Amino acid sequence: SLKRKITVAYGDGIGPEIMKATLNILHAADAQIDIDVIEIGEQVYLKGISSGMEPGAFESLKETKVFLKSPITTPQGGGFKSLNVTTRTSFGLFANVRPCKAYSPYIKTHYPKTDLVIIRENEEDLYAGIEHRQTDEVFQCLKLISRPGSEKIVRYAFEYAKKYGRKKVTCMTKDNIMKLADGLFHKVFDEIAKEYPTIQTDHKIIDIGTALIAERPDTFDVIVTLNLYGDIISDVAAQVTGSVGLGGSANVGEEVAMFEAIHGSAPDIAGMDMANPSGLLNGAIMMLVHIGQPEVAEKISNAWMRTLEDGIHTGDIFQEGLSSKKVGTQEFAQA
Amino acid sequence: SLKRKITVAYGDGIGPEIMKATLNILHAADAQIDIDVIEIGEQVYLKGISSGMEPGAFESLKETKVFLKSPITTPQGGGFKSLNVTTRTSFGLFANVRPCKAYSPYIKTHYPKTDLVIIRENEEDLYAGIEHRQTDEVFQCLKLISRPGSEKIVRYAFEYAKKYGRKKVTCMTKDNIMKLADGLFHKVFDEIAKEYPTIQTDHKIIDIGTALIAERPDTFDVIVTLNLYGDIISDVAAQVTGSVGLGGSANVGEEVAMFEAIHGSAPDIAGMDMANPSGLLNGAIMMLVHIGQPEVAEKISNAWMRTLEDGIHTGDIFQEGLSSKKVGTQEFAQA
Ligand SMILES: CC(C)[C@H](C(=O)O)[C@@H](O)C(=O)O
Ligand SMILES: CC(C)[C@H](C(=O)O)[C@@H](O)C(=O)O
Repeated sequence: SLKRKITVAYGDGIGPEIMKATLNILHAADAQIDIDVIEIGEQVYLKGISSGMEPGAFESLKETKVFLKSPITTPQGGGFKSLNVTTRTSFGLFANVRPCKAYSPYIKTHYPKTDLVIIRENEEDLYAGIEHRQTDEVFQCLKLISRPGSEKIVRYAFEYAKKYGRKKVTCMTKDNIMKLADGLFHKVFDEIAKEYPTIQTDHKIIDIGTALIAERPDTFDVIVTLNLYGDIISDVAAQVTGSVGLGGSANVGEEVAMFEAIHGSAPDIAGMDMANPSGLLNGAIMMLVHIGQPEVAEKISNAWMRTLEDGIHTGDIFQEGLSSKKVGTQEFAQA
Repeated sequence: SLKRKITVAYGDGIGPEIMKATLNILHAADAQIDIDVIEIGEQVYLKGISSGMEPGAFESLKETKVFLKSPITTPQGGGFKSLNVTTRTSFGLFANVRPCKAYSPYIKTHYPKTDLVIIRENEEDLYAGIEHRQTDEVFQCLKLISRPGSEKIVRYAFEYAKKYGRKKVTCMTKDNIMKLADGLFHKVFDEIAKEYPTIQTDHKIIDIGTALIAERPDTFDVIVTLNLYGDIISDVAAQVTGSVGLGGSANVGEEVAMFEAIHGSAPDIAGMDMANPSGLLNGAIMMLVHIGQPEVAEKISNAWMRTLEDGIHTGDIFQEGLSSKKVGTQEFAQA
């Protein structure tokens, strides 16, 4: 068949219901996909597999190279590795792409014009997990920044800006303190920027940069930054534009790419048909563009927007007005 | 005399004018202080002194143990060490205390009930400045977290909460990734929390924690965190409550303490009698409490608030209404 095979994980908590809703929409829109379901998350961890992924999951990903993933729950207690971090490093998913857009007036926000994309380095920095006890009283953690890693992500950001017609790329570091490590990232940014003379560039120290995202997210376009800073600013951007429940994200490597919602598995409302499937759906829309089905992506994106415009929404979204209608997960997908 | 001797630096940019305004207010309120003026900042750096402080400055601080400091400018180019970081480490200023309060309706904010205090560890973490080039292509930076350092700052936070009648202390770390280093800080927090059973406690992962400060700063009370996270969240908190121009901060050690505004030296408006002296003034108010003159502190604090209530403000503050009157730095101080 001409169908593209993709790997799918239903995850934990609200994962199964939002995945069901999302796949229903994909099928209804005639997405040309075949799905290979794998098991990951809580049940796998509890079997004693510290990565949270059954061996077959890795095989499936190696074959399909595309992963649509629901949020999972990591059980309390030690020894369990973050599944996200394992997937990122095992498959070289060097770029974490997180668009953040306001959908005012349908989603309440103080910053209705926000439309930014955070491109976060996804393999290096303090996430390498190199930690040790130096003495009984002192712990060390290693922050690693490499030139190849920095070049790859910065180039990705500029190529992204070029491809999607974005005007400006802002780099964020703390190079007034980490002159070598963050200094390298900033330097690489300045070097590569020269190859894209039509794109505006800017640099902000991460403290004031984060504050500006919090207060004026609508002044940013594309942002490229180190792993940990990217982790923090993407939560800030999503929160202030009201899109934590709506945001999708892509983890992109040379070969494999993973698509997901930015929110977690919300076990407290699991199985209640209350969850908003929009985050995973927006991840799936990014996936459709990635696998060369942009028309399907656009069709779904328009339908989604239209649904919000019609006032149809899940309970997490606050809407005023006569036409507002609160529905469950599956009814929202249906609409 | 019974006057307390303090060290004062006029700094760069708008530094001199806001210091003049602040000292005038202190004198008018009968603060019992004698001042010893030292030279720090741009001119000192340009003489080739990499710390930015003339040798006499260290002597003065060793004697007075109290430092009221205006913002300074660090010249462009390499080799200059951050004066703030040097002062913090030279004098063991382990706690960076940054209150962040909304003054609605006089200062515009979406979060009028905000009244939080960030207590930031001020000596360890990535700020130790231990960086090196591992290979031509890879740079390392060391993050250090110690048990004594963590205990000192966490205890300071709980003592602060107790002293000022605050109800809750929230700890922020990224211990889902840095299980040893950030894990130690979190563990120490849990241990020490037990000694303060009447104070509520909470822990947030720094990504969502920062996002919550950006979106709901009014839900926090006291926050204790690592150096770099504290740097980021204090800018976020100040920005979203509109208090970047108003916030004072204290850097406190066992012996010496430094008080300052949280904003920078703003060279673009230097010498124009436009700058808002409120940040430094609020730093000075914290200083007065520290040196045992809380009545003077309260008198000034009330007068400052009354001035805002009367609609008298510098140009950086936006006020609507009939009684609003825009004035210069010195006239604001006069009022
Ligand atoms: C769950 C955690 C490991 C992860 C991260 O820190 O990257 C999450 O916060 C994210 O942003 O995807
Ligand atoms: C100027 C810089 C070294 C400093 C810091 O990072 O601590 C500043 O951002 C601050 O917050 O006081």
